[in-house]
Parts: sequence; structure tokens; C-alpha cells
Amino acid sequence: MVPHLITALNGPINELEQRILESMPAIERWFRLEWMEHTPPFYSSVDVRNAGFKLAPVDTNLFPGGWNNLTDEMLPLAVQAAMAAIEKICPEAKNLLLIPEKHTRNSFYLSNVQRLTQIFNQAGLNVRLGTLDETITKPTTLTLPDGGTLTLEPLLRTPRRLGLKDFDPCTILLNNDLSGGIPKILENLHEQYLLPPLHAGWAVRRKSNHFQSYEEVAKKFAKLLGMDPWLINPMYSQCGQVNFADGTGVDCVQSNAEALLAKVRRKYKEYGINEKPFVVVKADAGTYGMGIMTVRDPKDLEDLNRRTRNKMSVIKEGQEVSEVIIQEGVPTYERMNDAVAEPVVYMLDRYVVGGFYRVHAERGIDENLNAPGAAFVPLAFAEASHMPRPGEKPGASAPNRFYMYGVIGRLAMLAASYELEATDPDAEIYE
Amino acid sequence: MVPHLITALNGPINELEQRILESMPAIERWFRLEWMEHTPPFYSSVDVRNAGFKLAPVDTNLFPGGWNNLTDEMLPLAVQAAMAAIEKICPEAKNLLLIPEKHTRNSFYLSNVQRLTQIFNQAGLNVRLGTLDETITKPTTLTLPDGGTLTLEPLLRTPRRLGLKDFDPCTILLNNDLSGGIPKILENLHEQYLLPPLHAGWAVRRKSNHFQSYEEVAKKFAKLLGMDPWLINPMYSQCGQVNFADGTGVDCVQSNAEALLAKVRRKYKEYGINEKPFVVVKADAGTYGMGIMTVRDPKDLEDLNRRTRNKMSVIKEGQEVSEVIIQEGVPTYERMNDAVAEPVVYMLDRYVVGGFYRVHAERGIDENLNAPGAAFVPLAFAEASHMPRPGEKPGASAPNRFYMYGVIGRLAMLAASYELEATDPDAEIYE
Repeated sequence: MVPHLITALNGPINELEQRILESMPAIERWFRLEWMEHTPPFYSSVDVRNAGFKLAPVDTNLFPGGWNNLTDEMLPLAVQAAMAAIEKICPEAKNLLLIPEKHTRNSFYLSNVQRLTQIFNQAGLNVRLGTLDETITKPTTLTLPDGGTLTLEPLLRTPRRLGLKDFDPCTILLNNDLSGGIPKILENLHEQYLLPPLHAGWAVRRKSNHFQSYEEVAKKFAKLLGMDPWLINPMYSQCGQVNFADGTGVDCVQSNAEALLAKVRRKYKEYGINEKPFVVVKADAGTYGMGIMTVRDPKDLEDLNRRTRNKMSVIKEGQEVSEVIIQEGVPTYERMNDAVAEPVVYMLDRYVVGGFYRVHAERGIDENLNAPGAAFVPLAFAEASHMPRPGEKPGASAPNRFYMYGVIGRLAMLAASYELEATDPDAEIYE
Repeated sequence: MVPHLITALNGPINELEQRILESMPAIERWFRLEWMEHTPPFYSSVDVRNAGFKLAPVDTNLFPGGWNNLTDEMLPLAVQAAMAAIEKICPEAKNLLLIPEKHTRNSFYLSNVQRLTQIFNQAGLNVRLGTLDETITKPTTLTLPDGGTLTLEPLLRTPRRLGLKDFDPCTILLNNDLSGGIPKILENLHEQYLLPPLHAGWAVRRKSNHFQSYEEVAKKFAKLLGMDPWLINPMYSQCGQVNFADGTGVDCVQSNAEALLAKVRRKYKEYGINEKPFVVVKADAGTYGMGIMTVRDPKDLEDLNRRTRNKMSVIKEGQEVSEVIIQEGVPTYERMNDAVAEPVVYMLDRYVVGGFYRVHAERGIDENLNAPGAAFVPLAFAEASHMPRPGEKPGASAPNRFYMYGVIGRLAMLAASYELEATDPDAEIYE
């Protein structure tokens, strides 16, 4: 189950929506059984693209920002989910140490930190903020757009524990995706819960691992519903050793793009989809919408202009791109006042707690919307007259539509759970 | 934490509210620790009375009806809590058998059953309704005010299990408070989860046990907050062997009422409360607002008129009253358009999922409002501008006010958990 939201549009009738709604109890039970075997990520957000003929996650964020974009109405759901999460991890906990990103001048990001603080505070934890920014050597108060304040404090490391002055937390929650590498101060913390784990950070994580796990999840789920997994799964391939600046390895990207486009074309033919396929090339460890390129024709990769080469070479915190993922492009046919939109689903523990539309007026249906100029339209709770009704015509009910988005979001979250298990450096292997 | 609701009024500044808000993380942690030791009732609703000088639960219902009075906005919270509850009890469950009350002609009650069905359905269970009404021998479809339907089916008992035709549930959820006694068909079901347990039903349960447990909980909680437990605890005493029809044992009620009134008077004096104390005499096993009498002067008990004697003699399903509880009366100073109101808090598992005001235009501040003529005003979610803010002036913030009600509701729920442990006939005793 999922909060029932007013989606921005009522799209075309969709067989998938009908199938998902009809199978609601079976789907919920399936997730319940999966969560008996797997641990959900502490929190996550998933970008979903709805092509009408296909609905798929295109990005799963394990250090979600943007909590401030959720409506206030969703706060109780988030707090309730946070209570459930904490109860499992550290029920005696008094204190939570939250480690945010370093870019503290971004007031949107600070509002996100404020909202996270509020959620965990209301779930019954004293929340304080520790920063990885070593230039901050004493408590530093920042003012927020709404007049509130946040205080960043320098981290205090002892041989076995991490905290702040007079603050010893049970759980350390990272809202910093570690794109710049794993800081020494976070290593070897075996007495405290460090969440998400270090290998969930972009210093270690790879999109290709995630989508490999997602493929596995999508196949299981598709079997449950008796459908083609492609309807919810974006195909992909990958290349290592790519250097867009000097052209090394671009031939690999090109041939993979070509092969993938051919596969997509066959699928489009199978389903009678009258569209021009495209693929999206992304840094395998990239985030923040950086290092992303839409490719409609592999030939375009031959002579990239300087700007594109630069864009594809360096991502967040100056990290160089060398591994890339080539992913089937899923156009988004959601629109809000003519601007292209994609739903983003927010989860805490195994619960969907909210979502919003990322809307971009200057981008096309086949482009990444996570870019400067994007706006966020919160999805409000359903009106009384919009109670989800399994009997309702597919596509006609906004809450039903959002239920479907929540299912896809949770499939991606489950994939992240598989992914983190598979990539856990401390995992014990049982043969 | 609690959904943040728009309460119908912003009452006088209240020290208790301030103390509770300031202690929010400590309170939430305290509940978390309590739930490590105790199991919350599956669901519950608590009637709370706010006297301005005192805030106390006066009734804790372990078979709550009225779920239809909650707003649609609260459905996601209820579903999320239901998912958490089911995951703990019976994660593999496909089926839930719901056993409602027999009075199936009450369309309000049927709407409640419909809402419960919806909650558990969205939590991922196939829900079907089995009836204890032996006159129903085949599936019987009832039409609801909104045009929907409910189908009641006869129960099918095998030596070890209870179900319906082609329906074998993991969990059996009672929404029937067993006032009329424990039906044989529900006995000795050791393979399935029967919730709430049989001894939570009014055939066994006693209000006096509940308020004894509540006193214990209130003392613990008051110690945590450094306050007088009386501020949240209604004092009580009890009498057995009372027969209002022939006058037997009324002297016990009278002397207890007198002693209790004296205790309340002392408390009022201590706090400078300029009110006339009253007590409420209730059937110890009563429900449905039946068998309840307000007593301002013990002399009033001497010559009860025939109507009052009748009212106090027989309660739901014709059960005779013989044990009574004499409880400190807590006036309610909440009002809605001049009508007296009391908040009712709904909980599922350990989570507050909603609430409403029970409003009665024809009753006084010292009377029971659970009576014909009562209306229900759903508490809506807080507006964006009403986000709970610990810094806000006590009494000025509706969401803060409702947080306090939710805390009191959960204290009563915790008391019910203690009570059910203490009265469990199957409990093993460790010395």
C-alpha cells in the first residue's frame, strides 16, 4: 500500500495498471515475503518514467534529498515509517547523528536536512548534524529560507565510535552519497549503525549492479503477475575504461548503444509501438543528474562536441568518469502544463511515504529531467472522492495510478536491497 | 508520533501540553522501550476528556468500531500500521477473517466494517466476513449507504481451525466485543491467530482491571515527565454484587462514590480548581455507552427512579450488571459550535492513525457522550501552516494539541497491553 495521491494527470488506459490493481493483495504479500528474506534500504527515492506502453525506474537514490518537496500531509506517514525503521535497528536509541552533504549554501538542500531532522525528531530521536567538511571546526549555525536554523558540528572520532561533542549516537544516518570517496572518519565503525552502509555510496556503488538486481526482481515480479518483465524493466549494458575527453573506449559505448537500440527496436515492433528508440548513457557511478547523455543514433557518439565531452567526463565532486552504463531510454509521457514530468517515489524502510513530480519545462520526453531548471510539484493526498477502488477503470483513477508508481518504486528499492547484499564487502559467503 | 490534526479548538494554555511537547523524543523513546517488553493490542480506540486542568482517558475500546468516521486522508496511515502489524503476526498470510458485530442493520456499523475491510485489503490481505449470527446459514449480501456491498458468510469450524467455505485464514480479527459471552466456535483455536484474544472481550474483561493497569502506566509516565500522575489519571474504585433493580449493593456504590468525591475534592483544592467534583458509575463490563450514570451527590443514589434503575441494570445483549466501577468524572471543556465534544483517538498496532471528535449537543460537560444523538467530526490533517513546532505557545497549535491526545491515547493502549497480560488465562507464571 501506498499513500493515495492526486497524480498530475490521468494517462491513457493501461493494462499494467489494471493488472497491478487486480493483484494488490498478492503483490503486497509478495513484498511481505521478500522483506522476510531481505533488508530494505533505510531510505530511498526512485525516479520512475511512464511511457504509456512501459513503466520503469531509471534511477534509485539511496541517499535521497528533496524530502522538503513532499507535502506536509505526508509527514505522519514518514514519521510512522521512521519509527518502524528505528525500532528494528536500535530501539533503545536516544540520538541520531545525521551527516549531510557538504554543499551547505544550497537552501533547498538545507530545507531537505531540516525536514529529515523533523521526521526523526518526531519519531523520538534527538537529531544533530555532523559535517564531513573539515573546514568547519566549531558549531556553525545556518539560516534557512523559513527563518529556522540548522547547526552543523564537527565530527568527533574515537577509536571505536563517531559522534559530536557530548553526543554519542546509536545510529549514524548518511545523507551524503560519498561521491568523493569514503572518508577515513567513517571507516571501521563496528559499534554503531552506519546507514546506509559505506558500499551504498557512489565511491563503491555502480548503477549496473543495481539494474542487474532490478532485472532479477522484475523477472520474479513479472512471473507473479504473468507478464513480460520488459514492461517494467529498462534493458542495459555497460562499458568500462571509457574516457570521453580523449575518446578512449567510446567505440565500446557506440557498439553497445547500437546493440541495445536494436533490442529495443525489436521490442517496439513486438508491441506495435510506433516510436523512435533511444538510449541513455550515464556514468556508472554518477549522480546529481551529471554525466548523462541521450543517444538516438550511435553515430552521434563519433564526433561529440567539447561541451558534451566535458559534461560526460567529470561528475559530482570532480570525480572522473570511466565506467558507463548504456540504458534503454524510457520516454516520459507525463505532463504538467505542457512541461515534461516524471514521478519520484520516496520510501522509508519498506514503506512508500510520498512522492512528487519532477517537472522540467525545457527538456524533452527523452531527456534527463534532473537538471537545473527542474521544479517539484508535490503530489497531494487524494480527495475524499478519489478513494482507491479496485473496480475503477484503469487510468481513470489518480490514486490507483500512484499505487502503481509505488509498486514500481518498491521493486527498485527491493533491487537495491539485493544489490547491497550482493556487493557487501563484509558479507559471509555460505556455499 | 501522531498524525497532526486540526483540532476543533485551541484551548487554554496548558502546562501539560508544554511538558509533553518538550519531552517528545524522550516520550517516543519511552514508548519504544515499553513496546520491547509488551505487545500492543491489535487495534484500539480511546475516549479522552480534556478538562483543561486534567487530561485523561475514560474508555479504552479493544474492538473499535467507527473506523468510517476517520477521514480518508488517514487511510494510508492505517494501512501502513496494518502492514506493520500483520508482518509481525503472520507475514505469510493471504487471508484475514473478520468477525463483525451481529447488528447488521446499522448502516453506520456496516460502513465501519467496510472501512476495516478496505484497510486490510490494501495492506495485502484477502478479507472476508464471517458472522456469529447463527441465523445466517448462507452467504448474505448487505447493501451499504454508498452503494457498495458486504457479504456475510456462515463460519465453518473444524476441530482445529475456523474459516469460511474455501477460505482458511491465518488471522481471525474480531470486531465483535463478545458482550454476550464467548461463543463455543471461537474456543480452542490454537493454530490460528485470534485477535484480540478472547479475554479482551467483555465476557471476561473488566474496566477496573484496565484502570488499575492505567494507573501503573500513568505513574511510570508521570515519573518520566516529573509530574503528578493525577493530571492524566482518573481515580476509581469498584463494587461487586450490585443490583440496581432491587437495590442490593447500592450502599457500596454510595460509600465508594462519597470517598472518591472526597479524594477529588482534595485534589481540586490542591490545584485551586473551582469546580464541583462528580463521579461516573459504570458497569464494570459494560460498553456501547450503556450502564453509565453521572453522580454529583451520593444521596442521589438513594432513590433512583425506575428509568435509571433499568438503565443501570441491563447492558448490551441483555447482560445483567453486577459489578460496577466508580470513576472520577473528568469534565470535557472541548466544544464545537456550543456542543460538548470529546476527542477519540484511534490506534492500530502501536501507531496512532487518526481520531475524531465525538460531539453531543444535548449532553453536559459531565455526561457520557457515547449516546444516541452523538455526531462525529473527523479531525482533518493539519494545514501546511500548522506544522507542529515544539517552540509554539502551548494551546496555540492544534497539531501540538493532538499530539498530546495521541500520547494519552497510547498510554491507555499500553495499559490495555499490561491488562491483557495480567488477565491472560493462558499466561505462564514465572516466579
